[in-house]
Amino acid sequence: MRSVIRTGALRDGPPSTTTAPAYSGIKNIPRTYTTAQPHHSSLNSSPAFHSKAADCSPESLATLANHAEAEPPSVALPVRHGERITIADIKERRAKAGRLVAPTAAYSDADMFKGPTTGKPKAKRWDHHLTHESTLRHPCKLKQAAKHLNNPGLISLGGGLPCPEYFPISSLTLHVPAPPDFSEAATLAPGGGETLTIGKYDTTLPPPSAGDALHHPEYDLSIALNYGQGNGSAQMTRFVTEHIELLGAPPYADWGVCLTIGSTGALEQILRMLCDGPGRGDCVLTEEFSFSTALETAVPLEVTTVGVRMDSEGLVPEAMDEILSQWDSVAAPGSGGKLAGKRKPHVLYTVPSGQNPTGATQSAARRQAIYAVAQRHDVLIIEDEPYYYLQMQAPGTAPPSTVDEFLKGLVPTYLTLDVDGRVIRMDSFSKVVVPGSRMGWITASAQLVERFTRHAEMANQGPNGFSQVILHKLLDERWGHEGYFGWLMNLRMEYTKRRDVMAAACEEFLPKEVVSWAPPQAGMFQWLKVNHTIHPHASDKTILDIEEEIFNNCIARGVLVARGSWFRAEQDVAPSGLYLRATFAAATPENMREAIRRLGAAIRESFQLYGV
Amino acid sequence: MRSVIRTGALRDGPPSTTTAPAYSGIKNIPRTYTTAQPHHSSLNSSPAFHSKAADCSPESLATLANHAEAEPPSVALPVRHGERITIADIKERRAKAGRLVAPTAAYSDADMFKGPTTGKPKAKRWDHHLTHESTLRHPCKLKQAAKHLNNPGLISLGGGLPCPEYFPISSLTLHVPAPPDFSEAATLAPGGGETLTIGKYDTTLPPPSAGDALHHPEYDLSIALNYGQGNGSAQMTRFVTEHIELLGAPPYADWGVCLTIGSTGALEQILRMLCDGPGRGDCVLTEEFSFSTALETAVPLEVTTVGVRMDSEGLVPEAMDEILSQWDSVAAPGSGGKLAGKRKPHVLYTVPSGQNPTGATQSAARRQAIYAVAQRHDVLIIEDEPYYYLQMQAPGTAPPSTVDEFLKGLVPTYLTLDVDGRVIRMDSFSKVVVPGSRMGWITASAQLVERFTRHAEMANQGPNGFSQVILHKLLDERWGHEGYFGWLMNLRMEYTKRRDVMAAACEEFLPKEVVSWAPPQAGMFQWLKVNHTIHPHASDKTILDIEEEIFNNCIARGVLVARGSWFRAEQDVAPSGLYLRATFAAATPENMREAIRRLGAAIRESFQLYGV
Repeated sequence: MRSVIRTGALRDGPPSTTTAPAYSGIKNIPRTYTTAQPHHSSLNSSPAFHSKAADCSPESLATLANHAEAEPPSVALPVRHGERITIADIKERRAKAGRLVAPTAAYSDADMFKGPTTGKPKAKRWDHHLTHESTLRHPCKLKQAAKHLNNPGLISLGGGLPCPEYFPISSLTLHVPAPPDFSEAATLAPGGGETLTIGKYDTTLPPPSAGDALHHPEYDLSIALNYGQGNGSAQMTRFVTEHIELLGAPPYADWGVCLTIGSTGALEQILRMLCDGPGRGDCVLTEEFSFSTALETAVPLEVTTVGVRMDSEGLVPEAMDEILSQWDSVAAPGSGGKLAGKRKPHVLYTVPSGQNPTGATQSAARRQAIYAVAQRHDVLIIEDEPYYYLQMQAPGTAPPSTVDEFLKGLVPTYLTLDVDGRVIRMDSFSKVVVPGSRMGWITASAQLVERFTRHAEMANQGPNGFSQVILHKLLDERWGHEGYFGWLMNLRMEYTKRRDVMAAACEEFLPKEVVSWAPPQAGMFQWLKVNHTIHPHASDKTILDIEEEIFNNCIARGVLVARGSWFRAEQDVAPSGLYLRATFAAATPENMREAIRRLGAAIRESFQLYGV
Repeated sequence: MRSVIRTGALRDGPPSTTTAPAYSGIKNIPRTYTTAQPHHSSLNSSPAFHSKAADCSPESLATLANHAEAEPPSVALPVRHGERITIADIKERRAKAGRLVAPTAAYSDADMFKGPTTGKPKAKRWDHHLTHESTLRHPCKLKQAAKHLNNPGLISLGGGLPCPEYFPISSLTLHVPAPPDFSEAATLAPGGGETLTIGKYDTTLPPPSAGDALHHPEYDLSIALNYGQGNGSAQMTRFVTEHIELLGAPPYADWGVCLTIGSTGALEQILRMLCDGPGRGDCVLTEEFSFSTALETAVPLEVTTVGVRMDSEGLVPEAMDEILSQWDSVAAPGSGGKLAGKRKPHVLYTVPSGQNPTGATQSAARRQAIYAVAQRHDVLIIEDEPYYYLQMQAPGTAPPSTVDEFLKGLVPTYLTLDVDGRVIRMDSFSKVVVPGSRMGWITASAQLVERFTRHAEMANQGPNGFSQVILHKLLDERWGHEGYFGWLMNLRMEYTKRRDVMAAACEEFLPKEVVSWAPPQAGMFQWLKVNHTIHPHASDKTILDIEEEIFNNCIARGVLVARGSWFRAEQDVAPSGLYLRATFAAATPENMREAIRRLGAAIRESFQLYGV
């Protein structure tokens, strides 16, 4: 059994211990976190260190007493098979676990924080899908040595971590919205909003009141701004692990998380982990129209993207099945096509909610059907969900009044269907907090998370400390899960309003004889289909020519939209339709209306619909 | 000629213009930056946009008048061939340029900010060194479309950039040291330090006093926390460009910079840009002992690291020349060695100052000699300089009293020798500000910077916005170059003290009959040579066995040091010596002394030097 305790890389100062009960694994073994004393502490003053047993502080003993007889753990712990974990469950779990003490560069993983997975099967193994590059990855030698830091009284001259004394920022103060009114107007009004302060040594200060471990800061600048682990801090790992449980944990036991520097970078890491273009002729399935930057990430890796037909619910499972079933003949070495000699795709990249660029959202049944096709053909699924929480309010329905209602109203993630562990979900804070955080996370089987993390150690060393500590302060410590979901509910209503402004403008200004569309149920994008077949020059101009003409007319009239052809998964195949993408994320309502008016005029000009 | 003005991706709102004179290129063409109005501004109210000419504000006209007759630009501008640019020059330049207005996702490059390079040659081209992967990179389609945002009055429905209204942080306040006393004690004392605040819309506020454009914030949260360019913000690009000029710009004209997510990630990007292991059998030269994470980055890429012999000044140029001169016979396909069939190395990775792990610092003459070998064999140099500013005070010398003295006392960077443009220097804020910033930059020829940037757009989208805006506020806006160099001078003195504590402890506690060392002139590491030949079991134990024995003794006695073998560039070759690495960066003086005492005892135990 692997050691459950691996503290930080290379931190100086004698570690002391505190204990938190475990919430994972078959057995309920108490897990021990270690901490380092403030760096001026004297030597050899730390309490004895127990690698598996609890320490003997009154608090720990009390905690243990609650659990000593608890077999199976589900008696004492908030696990309910077939039910979602609730925010109340998480609160109870945290109260029982006590304060999280995770010092500089402390190792952590989801297993330290998640609920019991008793009775759940393990994920399948994916060794046959890994690239040679990925199999050549080994843990950092310097980070491995960090295990010795558990020894009480040990002084580290091991790693070149600067002393926090030399960090030129002694505190950070944030001004943030105060729930329930999250609006900018309320926050910026005199006396509005709240201020939160993060100090350099907050975790070493005495608790605000004796015994109030829960309101004792668990993260500070001295930890966040030093080197950390490639998979992120324990503090944010706990938050995203619990967040995934609230959303619905996978039905297998050994799932994990790894913080990322955003989904753009995470996708490149995943592609390098699973797809070998030059060596193995690997391909990736995507929606026939897909996020252009994702497609552009595959190109230099010589990974061929193969587009799957879409309908109003996005990717069509039957089309995916057909491509995979017929692969051997299509890609036969002698077939002469662009897929000649290519390996049958074993990876699907999909944006299931508010798909970029089409805005399509896969229903629960659609996701189940696509998952079944993936199972049939041994395909791993990269579930890219930046817009997951931008699922709109259905017209005429009342907004959710509770977090529970909100969560139940969301289309289930692929994770909740994933009996095999074949899904890698990418979450991001970019669209729902700030893009500049460059932070998100993946959720996947422990095997894939481990391989991904090994690469993160070299590619980026995990997300930056400012984002980790600022988002932790706001989302975890101040708002908590409930407040953060409140923020997301608020955002959903804002985007619903924006979507509706654009839909109304389209109704008012676009020529329906040429343009057709359906307002999206999620995301940031309105997809517009232009009927090129009735263009005056349909017979002598290509679709791309007409698209360019419309685009240029748009620019001349002062509106920028994205050309549909930029998003085509197979750039070398002639397009069959003409599309435009317009975002309702950025412009003010009045600008959006004016922009769509200009777009309508530009299309009319191209189609010579004067005076209509 | 390429357009000098490419603003931001996909920002909503009609752009207005302001003008800054150019400081680069052969001709002194005024450069125009564009800005977007606050997002509630009305339509069509922006002034006319001039892509190359100046606008007509009194300020711009005054600026132009100063330059209109200035041919060549060196008459009016602070260029002095063969001399370093000074801080006064930079201040003068900025005052003439006026306020930098660079909105969300504004494109920028070093050419917009650097001084004139008239008469300097262009860098050589390195097409034959690029990997196939690197040559397959193309600019993002969505970012290319951003050029249309220059059109006045254009409304963008192009990119999915969230509206800053939904950023839940309306201001960030930092508490920081106040020069000249940078110490933590002074900063944390009551009334000590200073507070700096960054608002969401600072750039759109009126200037603090009429006409005081220079003290009008040029960066804010609405810009920094949105999406940006892969090469970083204009604001930080200007700062690091000027910083490099103060350090000494390269002697060729077309050098550039690209902000990075830290040098660990930057190195992986550079290796993928220049080295193709599986396809081309590429190797990289490194010091025979090198940073373990750098070596570990090369392994999964199947790039072989070839160690070059070192002496007290680090890498030995004659040894490098010998390896390269004899390559064809050593690596001949039939030679049977591990280098059989490998391509002659065309890349050197070196840490010239305070090398990790040996602490060695290359002198100016040594750098020149290594550069000459690189020229002779068509080798590119990756200059990794995290410890550059941790060059110590020489014993008995007075600390520098001015920035100029400080800069003149530093060993020159490879950049200043680089007549060909064959050096890629990696700088990092990790060791001199905070590691958690995950931010640094590279400086190299425009060709290499462009290829690197194309990858950054996919691998990470540039450094996070929190780090960019916080470091800009502190280093650029508050401290300025002078204050930042003051901070670095302070840090140098702190590390000198730490080095001296460790040196004294080594003198006191290490058995000189077994251990030899020289205190380093730079960096964070003391390298210790252990004479394994006099070990009682020298005849029947390997070096690695003895190293492990000492390491285990150390752990048992409560000290962690790094094993020298972890840093060996060629792990498959038997080691010829036994070394240990001890850092003086992290532990307190008293802990450091105690740790070295324990280390001495552990070595004595291993060598059976009882009672010495």
